Amino acid sequence: MEIDASQECGGGVNAAQGFTAGGVYCGIRKPKKDIALVKSAKPAVVAGVFTQNKVVAAPLQVDKIQLKNSNLCSAVVINSGNANACTGEQGMKDAWTMVETTADALHLPREQVLVSSTGVIGQYLPMENILNGIRDCSTKLSADGNKDAAEAIMTTDIFPKQCAVRFPFGSTVITIGGMAKGSGMIAPNMATMLAFVTTDAVIAQPALQSALRMANNRSFNRVTVDGDMSTNDMLLVLANGLAKNEEIKEKTPAFLQFLAALEYVLIKLAKMIARDGEGATKFVEIVVIGARTEDEATQAARSVANSNLVKTALHGADANWGRILCAVGYSGIDFDPAKVSIGFNNLTVLQPNYEIVLDEEKAKAALSQDDITVLVNLHQGSAESRFWTCDLTKEYIHINASYRS
Amino acid sequence: MEIDASQECGGGVNAAQGFTAGGVYCGIRKPKKDIALVKSAKPAVVAGVFTQNKVVAAPLQVDKIQLKNSNLCSAVVINSGNANACTGEQGMKDAWTMVETTADALHLPREQVLVSSTGVIGQYLPMENILNGIRDCSTKLSADGNKDAAEAIMTTDIFPKQCAVRFPFGSTVITIGGMAKGSGMIAPNMATMLAFVTTDAVIAQPALQSALRMANNRSFNRVTVDGDMSTNDMLLVLANGLAKNEEIKEKTPAFLQFLAALEYVLIKLAKMIARDGEGATKFVEIVVIGARTEDEATQAARSVANSNLVKTALHGADANWGRILCAVGYSGIDFDPAKVSIGFNNLTVLQPNYEIVLDEEKAKAALSQDDITVLVNLHQGSAESRFWTCDLTKEYIHINASYRS
Repeated sequence: MEIDASQECGGGVNAAQGFTAGGVYCGIRKPKKDIALVKSAKPAVVAGVFTQNKVVAAPLQVDKIQLKNSNLCSAVVINSGNANACTGEQGMKDAWTMVETTADALHLPREQVLVSSTGVIGQYLPMENILNGIRDCSTKLSADGNKDAAEAIMTTDIFPKQCAVRFPFGSTVITIGGMAKGSGMIAPNMATMLAFVTTDAVIAQPALQSALRMANNRSFNRVTVDGDMSTNDMLLVLANGLAKNEEIKEKTPAFLQFLAALEYVLIKLAKMIARDGEGATKFVEIVVIGARTEDEATQAARSVANSNLVKTALHGADANWGRILCAVGYSGIDFDPAKVSIGFNNLTVLQPNYEIVLDEEKAKAALSQDDITVLVNLHQGSAESRFWTCDLTKEYIHINASYRS
Repeated sequence: MEIDASQECGGGVNAAQGFTAGGVYCGIRKPKKDIALVKSAKPAVVAGVFTQNKVVAAPLQVDKIQLKNSNLCSAVVINSGNANACTGEQGMKDAWTMVETTADALHLPREQVLVSSTGVIGQYLPMENILNGIRDCSTKLSADGNKDAAEAIMTTDIFPKQCAVRFPFGSTVITIGGMAKGSGMIAPNMATMLAFVTTDAVIAQPALQSALRMANNRSFNRVTVDGDMSTNDMLLVLANGLAKNEEIKEKTPAFLQFLAALEYVLIKLAKMIARDGEGATKFVEIVVIGARTEDEATQAARSVANSNLVKTALHGADANWGRILCAVGYSGIDFDPAKVSIGFNNLTVLQPNYEIVLDEEKAKAALSQDDITVLVNLHQGSAESRFWTCDLTKEYIHINASYRS
């Protein structure tokens, strides 16, 4: 069974059975909701991927210890506005206190609570506000608290990011839903900032981890906003088994179906992150086809997606295909530049042998749209890949020149 | 003998004996000088390094053939405004025609002429203008044409970049001088855009190439503006031997002295490129000390220098040391974040163990200067390195969103 938009069921992190969520304002940084809780009625198996940055924020260090001690998770607490990164021993203590306070407030074993933070680096958490916020939020969890939660994890994001799908699965129905936040410091070699996904599927932890790893490689690992890999990137999937399906085992058709659905949700969230990149006015999909391998196609697509010059040209609706070819040129893959063709939104501008078929007026029109697909055909094989990004604008500079103030 | 500012002698590409230069306007793109010529009275041995981009502009392909056929060079012709890159067979033909026209105008053998271009990618050269420009320029070469030449190779550069040193060498005196252009698409894994250096030293080609490779690694390979490696990067050194010194041989004290002087000139030019980065308002030096090896220090410094988030924060005079530590974290080197200290212009803001000693007012004052040194001490060894860059500004976006128009 294909997963497509017709399976989308609305909602997010509590679309699956047994999950509740909430989000409240506790006063961390800005006048917006800043504490979120996600809770499962039944302890869920949990899989996670984390930043590969050597500088790892305190909550991630705590979660890695938690995951070593327990495969089960009943709740996740998340704050925005402060990343609790580069905060040393005090930061570790604060992250543990967030875990303990959440466990106490929700009457859960401490080892079943995970913690996550996003926001400014190098400042201590305002713990009194946060602990009050956790207690407040714990009394407000509901089956439609997903939007509050999705809003509470936003930092410079402009819109909340949620997606959920529901599909028949054997004689049962499985739901997968999630939320994410992104916007800046987005260059994952893992997940992009924070994403939390829940499902009622019955699946063992190793199979869940394996599905997550694969789906993540084709979703969050294909997004870039500014090339800066965060200290706090985290993607968690909780599966509480309430759908009562036959257990999903690796290397089975059932696993592939589950994987396709998980990938659908993650890609949808990943694309929302690109669309909502800091200062972005355009959503950009870089598609590389005709490559020898998927890895090479990804490498070329990433290089184009990370190019400041390409992204400023797209911002200006300037059909500067030379910068695109240039970025493929320094991506590290081996190819023949003379074989390449390049197009924007179904409009070819460069044919092989450097035959320029650029119609400036049509190109300007194509590039003036909000959604731009850049198609690069290497004409050296049949593999393909894609990367999602956004344009680079003065607003990005504006946001980031004064982020801490 | 140390080389320092006291050896600077003014001038640029024709400070050394026997070199003349000139620059004229021929109408390629903007109302500015756009054709430069550099000529040696005596055929010079020549060494070069070129872009590692797989997309290599036509003039570089021509020069590589020329250098295979001859170690000697008597003239270099350079145009700005059009890179003659991604122009296929027509581009190759045009580059050869530039060589031939220059050789004919200056009565030189064709194999002794090199060609270089910089500017927009993917457009054919306006050959009639260019050939007229070459002929015009060839009649105007002079011993003080260096400034005209340095101006003629500028694209979005704001000021011409020149440097020359003169120093006693045995019983003789050697001069090394040069010019460069940079500004955008600056992320060399080689030279940064274009640089032309001349000397009257007597040195064999292999020794000159070896000195160039070493000096380049510590100069142009340490500059980044926007992380985009160009299709046209080229650095040439011509040595015509008119100083009549004893021939410089590798692995001798004389070689080291020559190398130090060459490195001095290249570093000076490289720093000018960073200072004049597109849209830049600040010159930024990233210094990483306390590393295990120079390579690791360079890797960490490059990662910080390439970070959009660091560069926008510096633009806003925001002492966001967390972004600096974060960028070291994803640089790929192994280190303990808790050991790191960070400072701006002699003002420490982070001590080991995440002890934050940031005085916001003093930091704001330090970061409001035009020249900023970011000091990162890894506290894990005694090796160090540095990288030069600039801040990232709205003006960069402005310039690049409409570069072709």
